[in-house]
Amino acid sequence: MNLRTYLAQHKALVEQRINEYLSADGMPANLHKSMAYSLNAGGKRIRPVLVFAGAEAVGGDIKRVMPLAVTLEMIHTFSLIHDDLPAMDDDDLRRGKPTNHKVFGEATAILAGDALLAEAFWILTKASPACAPALVLDVICDVAEASGARGMTGGQVFDMEATGKALTEAELENVHRHKTGKLLSVSVVGGAKLCGATDAQLKALSIYGAAIGLAFQIADDILDIEGTEEEIGKDVGSDVDAHKATYPAIIGIEAARIKERCLVDEAISALAIFDDKADPLREIAKYIVDRKT
Amino acid sequence: MNLRTYLAQHKALVEQRINEYLSADGMPANLHKSMAYSLNAGGKRIRPVLVFAGAEAVGGDIKRVMPLAVTLEMIHTFSLIHDDLPAMDDDDLRRGKPTNHKVFGEATAILAGDALLAEAFWILTKASPACAPALVLDVICDVAEASGARGMTGGQVFDMEATGKALTEAELENVHRHKTGKLLSVSVVGGAKLCGATDAQLKALSIYGAAIGLAFQIADDILDIEGTEEEIGKDVGSDVDAHKATYPAIIGIEAARIKERCLVDEAISALAIFDDKADPLREIAKYIVDRKT
Repeated sequence: MNLRTYLAQHKALVEQRINEYLSADGMPANLHKSMAYSLNAGGKRIRPVLVFAGAEAVGGDIKRVMPLAVTLEMIHTFSLIHDDLPAMDDDDLRRGKPTNHKVFGEATAILAGDALLAEAFWILTKASPACAPALVLDVICDVAEASGARGMTGGQVFDMEATGKALTEAELENVHRHKTGKLLSVSVVGGAKLCGATDAQLKALSIYGAAIGLAFQIADDILDIEGTEEEIGKDVGSDVDAHKATYPAIIGIEAARIKERCLVDEAISALAIFDDKADPLREIAKYIVDRKT
Repeated sequence: MNLRTYLAQHKALVEQRINEYLSADGMPANLHKSMAYSLNAGGKRIRPVLVFAGAEAVGGDIKRVMPLAVTLEMIHTFSLIHDDLPAMDDDDLRRGKPTNHKVFGEATAILAGDALLAEAFWILTKASPACAPALVLDVICDVAEASGARGMTGGQVFDMEATGKALTEAELENVHRHKTGKLLSVSVVGGAKLCGATDAQLKALSIYGAAIGLAFQIADDILDIEGTEEEIGKDVGSDVDAHKATYPAIIGIEAARIKERCLVDEAISALAIFDDKADPLREIAKYIVDRKT
């Protein structure tokens, strides 16, 4: 398989549908604009792609998991809008474009994030009629946990508390497992779950998701040091400037590289029970550490 | 029936359980503190009481709707935390206590609001095993819509856009139907829905909910002018000072009084198909315009 083609096709699939799902109907026009601005600001759409690849790995249909794919991209976008706020990371640029609050003002940016989170659950509930209600409920439960205080939002707090402090490797891992790991894991597991995966399959995909989530973060930390500004879409070395704890800073860049390769091996090993329908997941794991953006 | 006793008992019921539901397990300690601070800051708990009264009106069991009651109080609390932020209403006090961001800082307050919204969906999904999955999904869908861009969050945007402008009565009504009306309506309708209400019952409760939601807001506007600071827990006339559009300002205080009584009559008429198990709902409608806080 050609991963580049796979990623481009699956990214296009979700981008075609995301604006249909985010209907302006019944919303204040400016709020809709603000939500759509950040939702259409590009990005790798890695969570939707993982939803699709998780569904395909168990022989499922992509159409069935489209609402979950859109939902997770909305939740990811909500977190970016709030992370960029002046009270948080105070970023002016995101993927080379002005951040949401720079364009729409702080109040609207806060509310656009809030609305994306609520809308995500609305879509997941409303647009999944092909799935058994008990399965959808189970996935909503996973998504809510991975988004909230025990997941991504909690991870942002751990991250804030860590800034400027000397963290151990275990503490840094705790930040990332919450901040990005759980939602990435829910992407691949949720996609498979909605397509009737077995418990053994879900367990394997959960190990895969956790491993690539962490590998992804380590790769990001390395890119922050070694990438070019054009490649990574923000200032090179901005993590260092912000005194953020990173893997290269804590364990050294060589050890960080070894750790990310280890995690990729772990992710691929976990997929041993799957046939070649899981090849996209295997290729995605390898891509994570080889990517340049 | 004695409404005062009813309100006190049902408020106590949800307050006993709300901290059990908001388990600190797996959350950053400070985030949990911030969430719990606002959740335990008092208030009338009108949404949980409406959930209970809606369930009782159709002969349902309060235990079955406890997760929904807690969920809606969490969503209400999330909206208060975000509304109070410097970028929004910039309030230092809420119910006589320092607002969340004054105690925990702006970043944590934003994240505590986010986490309460996610947690609300988690609890609704996780803690409703006694209900049919399809019913729970239906209620989650209603709650998400009433919380997001088509409901409360959209209403906050309409409200912001209205500040300092001369609104028509219809425009003001649009603000309130979104900002408070939809979530109040979902409270009473959702409680009944989880207990197996018929379509006719749900339709009646929906009319009831919309009418008392608006009456509640008009009563608030009147209280802002006529209440004492001790009664209403904020500065008297603060809406006037903030150049907020209010019913008394637009249609005059006498017309506002007539309108709120009309809405209460409409709410009570909608309950005609119910027996005396809907008496708490009838009394709550009357109480809304007679209350002093």
